[in-house]
Amino acid sequence: MLDRAIDLGLVEQLDLAPLRHGPLDKLRFTVKDNIDIAGHKTSYGSPAWRNAHPAPVHNALCVDQLLAAGARCVGKAVADEFTYSLDGESFHFGTPRNAKAPDRIPGGSSSGSAASVANGIADFSLCTDAGGSIRVPASLCGLWGMRPSTHRISEAGVLPFQPSVSTVGVLAERLDVLDAAMRVMLNGPAAPPPSPGRIIILEDAMSIASPAVQDQAASALERIASRAGLALERVRFSEIIGEQSELSACNLNGLRDLQTAEFQSTVGNWIEACKPELGFTFSMAYGNVQRFDRIAALDRLANRERLFRQINAFFTPDTVISFPTTPTIAPRKGSLNTLEAVMAFYDPAMTITAFSGAARLPEISAPLLSVEHCPVGLSFVAGNYQDEFLLNAVREMLI
Amino acid sequence: MLDRAIDLGLVEQLDLAPLRHGPLDKLRFTVKDNIDIAGHKTSYGSPAWRNAHPAPVHNALCVDQLLAAGARCVGKAVADEFTYSLDGESFHFGTPRNAKAPDRIPGGSSSGSAASVANGIADFSLCTDAGGSIRVPASLCGLWGMRPSTHRISEAGVLPFQPSVSTVGVLAERLDVLDAAMRVMLNGPAAPPPSPGRIIILEDAMSIASPAVQDQAASALERIASRAGLALERVRFSEIIGEQSELSACNLNGLRDLQTAEFQSTVGNWIEACKPELGFTFSMAYGNVQRFDRIAALDRLANRERLFRQINAFFTPDTVISFPTTPTIAPRKGSLNTLEAVMAFYDPAMTITAFSGAARLPEISAPLLSVEHCPVGLSFVAGNYQDEFLLNAVREMLI
Repeated sequence: MLDRAIDLGLVEQLDLAPLRHGPLDKLRFTVKDNIDIAGHKTSYGSPAWRNAHPAPVHNALCVDQLLAAGARCVGKAVADEFTYSLDGESFHFGTPRNAKAPDRIPGGSSSGSAASVANGIADFSLCTDAGGSIRVPASLCGLWGMRPSTHRISEAGVLPFQPSVSTVGVLAERLDVLDAAMRVMLNGPAAPPPSPGRIIILEDAMSIASPAVQDQAASALERIASRAGLALERVRFSEIIGEQSELSACNLNGLRDLQTAEFQSTVGNWIEACKPELGFTFSMAYGNVQRFDRIAALDRLANRERLFRQINAFFTPDTVISFPTTPTIAPRKGSLNTLEAVMAFYDPAMTITAFSGAARLPEISAPLLSVEHCPVGLSFVAGNYQDEFLLNAVREMLI
Repeated sequence: MLDRAIDLGLVEQLDLAPLRHGPLDKLRFTVKDNIDIAGHKTSYGSPAWRNAHPAPVHNALCVDQLLAAGARCVGKAVADEFTYSLDGESFHFGTPRNAKAPDRIPGGSSSGSAASVANGIADFSLCTDAGGSIRVPASLCGLWGMRPSTHRISEAGVLPFQPSVSTVGVLAERLDVLDAAMRVMLNGPAAPPPSPGRIIILEDAMSIASPAVQDQAASALERIASRAGLALERVRFSEIIGEQSELSACNLNGLRDLQTAEFQSTVGNWIEACKPELGFTFSMAYGNVQRFDRIAALDRLANRERLFRQINAFFTPDTVISFPTTPTIAPRKGSLNTLEAVMAFYDPAMTITAFSGAARLPEISAPLLSVEHCPVGLSFVAGNYQDEFLLNAVREMLI
């Protein structure tokens, strides 16, 4: 692989012509390397996986949806190993370039998707998000990114990962492109959704962010609310769910164990049976997967279902909740080299990203903040299945 | 494999002790052979698949949920090849015995699950349903069967089939057992749901049924409504969705193409790459999969999303819709030996089963009807995610 290609986020350059004309005419996209493209092996971020599996004969359904809507596929994009990471420093493929902060990590696991868009190779990238794999690179690379409501978009032809949690979404340089590509896959209602009636800051997520990110997010949201003629509201997580609890419950008492248990049942089974060569960083993370107590974790699954119901009961059809997508700008490349550094990056990031994950919410990360000349995203979420309302609300609020 | 074991629906006898005490103490269950059991190969109804894949090291998450709730696993149950069938006559494994109509097919693809329960080997069986694979054998074998709302129960460790359509559910001899097993996996709210306020016959599904089935279903529903103090209502499919349409639209203009496209992306890729030996019946069906035009079918996916929204907009939180699960009793064994006979069984059956499939509804088939001494199920459905209401409503109405 040429270093230059990896800089740009590409595992493989492609040129798949659109299948029909449509709303995505003239747009170029890349495809994260855990999503099938006919005739080209899918690596799942792992050379061992790529060697062990034949090339698919069909595109993933979402790839066909985009090609049939007029878009052209220009490449396969680097993914972190088994997409089980948020940092984007691939042991096997290298670290795609964070165009707006070149000495910093791009974030993962959709690192190549982000780099291909931020470096101008593609207008958007088709990628996946379970624990934050679209939202984190969107935030750290200064792009628009959306994970839809869980199970809104078909995962046929997307490699099995965490069946209750995984989503298919998009990273893009421009909001109108993100919007158009997401709508092709969502197949939503034609009727216009309501305008946003409430804009609410999730205080617990704000308070995890660095002071500079907090200040910027608060100012941006004051401007947005004021322009929309709305009073900016604030809410604590415990008020949302109606009981004493910290936001960290979404990750620690719910989503994390579900994700680990499901990963064991998909990739874990394959690793145990085939003993492939694993990258150093993934090996460390997988050690925790191997030591995980599935049975003890079953009670946590009930927590995640309760959080899903409680959080969605808070939303009205015109409510938008906002918070910084990640608590800080990207760490410097190579700095995640101690357990402390890894935890300092992952723990606060996942405390925030698990909110949408646990509640199956659609979330859009908007490239609105900048600290030390490095990007940070501002996220907007709506209730489960309110994806079209959220897309519409973000356009109304920000354009 | 002993013929006697296949009669009883078993691929393999097992004895996996419960992991903890719980609400399923003393209950025995079998597991359909597309759901992983640690240390035992999963065949997916195909000897070629079984030979090509290693044994899983983890149970599927749903298996662990049941074992941790007190149930004991007593066997692996026969599944139709790649679960891509509704008849239950496995080319490779034989036809499990329909205990209540021994000269007739059991229905599929959860044929072994149904036989293991109906023949007394297990109190319930853990199985899967996309196009009707739980509901059809429930109806034809005289059992309780439930497919939950799509994506309510984790499919981690269940072999990938049709990611937007597949569900994990239960077949049982008794309603209280079905109820208990489903609730363990659903992790639903503790608050009691409303009592049924409307019981409505879906006329289009009734009119597809044989006259004897129609008469029995109508009498049963008159009794049920009267005992519940409700007027039995009737509705046409076009009234539900608010536009001129036949019920067959759910299958023909929506679900069928989505199922075919997704099956291509899971099992289809593997078949094309590995060229396994295929059974005669499956080969016939797979010919249609190979000739399928994915791109032309993409527009149908938008139809299924529209049907999902339209049908769910009709439901209030206390509405139950009812119809015969299958239009007739089971065909005789070996009678599906011409294209005409196959179509005469599948087309009307799938016209009915696609209603819940397209709208992601929970559906319970109740063993309430009998024609020529052979069972037929009466189905009850509720709105998407109203699984606990439906379980509660069926108990209230029928006990």
